[in-house]
Amino acid sequence: MDPTLVLSRIAAQMKPSPIRELFKLTAQPGMISFAGGLPDPAIFPVAELAGCAETLSRDGSAVLQYGASEGYGPLREVLLPMMRARLGRDVRGEELLVTSGSQQALDLVARALVDPGDVVVVEAPTYPGALHTLRNVGARFAAVPCDAEGMRVELLGAAVARCEAETGKRPKLVYSIPDFSNPSGACMSLERRKRLAAIAEELHVLVVEDDPYGLLRYKGASIPPLASVAAGSPWVLYLSSFSKVLAPGLRVAWAVGAPELVRAMVVLRQGVDLCTPNVTQSLAAEYCRRGHLERHLARIVGHYARKRDDMARSLSAEIPKGALEWDEPEGGFFFWLRLRDRDSGELFKRAIAEKVAFLPGNAFYPDPGEQVGEVQQGTARARLCFTFADATQTTEGCRRLARAL
Amino acid sequence: MDPTLVLSRIAAQMKPSPIRELFKLTAQPGMISFAGGLPDPAIFPVAELAGCAETLSRDGSAVLQYGASEGYGPLREVLLPMMRARLGRDVRGEELLVTSGSQQALDLVARALVDPGDVVVVEAPTYPGALHTLRNVGARFAAVPCDAEGMRVELLGAAVARCEAETGKRPKLVYSIPDFSNPSGACMSLERRKRLAAIAEELHVLVVEDDPYGLLRYKGASIPPLASVAAGSPWVLYLSSFSKVLAPGLRVAWAVGAPELVRAMVVLRQGVDLCTPNVTQSLAAEYCRRGHLERHLARIVGHYARKRDDMARSLSAEIPKGALEWDEPEGGFFFWLRLRDRDSGELFKRAIAEKVAFLPGNAFYPDPGEQVGEVQQGTARARLCFTFADATQTTEGCRRLARAL
Repeated sequence: MDPTLVLSRIAAQMKPSPIRELFKLTAQPGMISFAGGLPDPAIFPVAELAGCAETLSRDGSAVLQYGASEGYGPLREVLLPMMRARLGRDVRGEELLVTSGSQQALDLVARALVDPGDVVVVEAPTYPGALHTLRNVGARFAAVPCDAEGMRVELLGAAVARCEAETGKRPKLVYSIPDFSNPSGACMSLERRKRLAAIAEELHVLVVEDDPYGLLRYKGASIPPLASVAAGSPWVLYLSSFSKVLAPGLRVAWAVGAPELVRAMVVLRQGVDLCTPNVTQSLAAEYCRRGHLERHLARIVGHYARKRDDMARSLSAEIPKGALEWDEPEGGFFFWLRLRDRDSGELFKRAIAEKVAFLPGNAFYPDPGEQVGEVQQGTARARLCFTFADATQTTEGCRRLARAL
Repeated sequence: MDPTLVLSRIAAQMKPSPIRELFKLTAQPGMISFAGGLPDPAIFPVAELAGCAETLSRDGSAVLQYGASEGYGPLREVLLPMMRARLGRDVRGEELLVTSGSQQALDLVARALVDPGDVVVVEAPTYPGALHTLRNVGARFAAVPCDAEGMRVELLGAAVARCEAETGKRPKLVYSIPDFSNPSGACMSLERRKRLAAIAEELHVLVVEDDPYGLLRYKGASIPPLASVAAGSPWVLYLSSFSKVLAPGLRVAWAVGAPELVRAMVVLRQGVDLCTPNVTQSLAAEYCRRGHLERHLARIVGHYARKRDDMARSLSAEIPKGALEWDEPEGGFFFWLRLRDRDSGELFKRAIAEKVAFLPGNAFYPDPGEQVGEVQQGTARARLCFTFADATQTTEGCRRLARAL
């Protein structure tokens, strides 16, 4: 063997992720950042969570020991009724898996199902972290365009057929964020959810429904999750998380899916990290058990609704008329701007020079070379996160953005 | 596509891991278990760790936010000097990665380096969790036998050559537990460590040194870790953990290795779980910062030394002369029994009937069909964990084991 083979393989793996490089640029001093999709630390329930650390003293010998790969018992007891309420159906223990962030759930299901070169369907645009996870298992992408009502589900059948024609196989999974998509903020209509559930059932393609934002709705009426519309179909794997509604520093999330799939993920993860820490799970369980979560949710929905309004007002006031267009999101974390004739990569550079950061649209699409079928791109798009910056920064950031334009 | 293809693929993935099935049997009521490799919950520093939860109030806005994939700053500041002391050399930040258990570090390096069908070298016997992790990436195994001085390093060159002859490639990595191996309890001699470091350097094969037990020495003089003997060679990746010396429920561990390798692991993990929770990292950091770890280490070394003596005394007192043989381990968690003419799988069944559990030897070897080269097996071996059961259980458990014999 060439002695450099191992190191060159390592070097190939570490080709810098483009988004990581972007984030480095956004971390300069004096920068106002709308780039990261971060919750507002000002609204973290620090005192209440610190109070829940009582579980460490009370249940120390269980909390500090190795845990079950399926999750810590007391947290599972909190999550099951929570999921019954959210999905509007009985959810059994064998359908539930606690994970270290939803990222891990996606990683596990991708490792269980996807072989290198397999195609997965993603929305265009979609969450860059999901693209990264799916890339790690060697996936290629069929990108289905989105509009104000989310994934254009009517194009999914053709995408699947094209994938079958090109590769001889159906896509291994469909990754979707129906509620308040990252980055587009769009909420998939009920009609499309029904159609998506029917397609999954008919074609036997697994849909991974990522739902970190579903409870963060600031206006309009809720639409049931796809996993609820699909009424317990084994072809929907539902993911949710405490990261956006409580605190990402806990890294506690969960998946609800077909028992066979959940068991496969459990067996895999015993070689991945054994289990999510009992310590963080017990904090989350205690927090919910004390009834804090409902109160906190009401508080953050109001808080983020105001921040969304701040951002909308600042954009309207500061951005020259017609230079940018956007739809006001009804929930979630993001404004997804249309730049008309501007290239968002070029605007990003000018914005960084003006000390304001966002994420350019192409970060939310697979690279053209990774796509099968019609290539989607986000050159004239930009994502602004409105939850992290405070009101003053939001106004000033939009002013700087106007200068960059 | 056959509509059952996805589900049958899942079913194939979830072929029950043999060790999981064994553990189910050991979980019956009234069972005295020497099976799991668990620390003693009676010695968990519950009050001190609970006191450290003060960091949640003090640093809440950082602790509850998303963290860096490389690890939480204050923990890294604790680990760097700790590693400098342990490895006897300067350790730079770019060499350090905090992971969610050492299991995750092994998973990441395996994913970075191993393609399906590639061969990795393991000690025979070795930690079953490592076999599981390596199986997950499709590895096959070359098993190098161990004796009382650990891996018989003098056989490694031949194993590598045989692997090259059979597969056309060198093994992608060598996995070793030099200090108080799980399961054998053996400690690799300094002479062998030197030879292993030289082979790694000469053949450009990465050695993953797993060191969860190194500080748990009950007699005899310490031997420097392989990563210390190898003096900063890029061909050793050193892993250690708080799981055995503090609490596994934190799931906080770390890796020290070549910056290229660490960067590759960081990039990969951004698609795996983003980061280890800041919450657990801040608890561990605060615990160390307050000087608790040194005091706790002194306490548990004494505690586990007594438990080792309890087990040795109980075995000598209860087991019919000549029925079992063992070496007293100088550290770690395990007795590794020789059963002479008995089959440990058959003894396991009789032991379960007598309500005492251990792990039969074959769990610590790759399946014969997964091995390349000479096949190693552990049919006449059994692992007893002495750290978990209390003194009364240990005596009674050995009595039951005698009955099973």
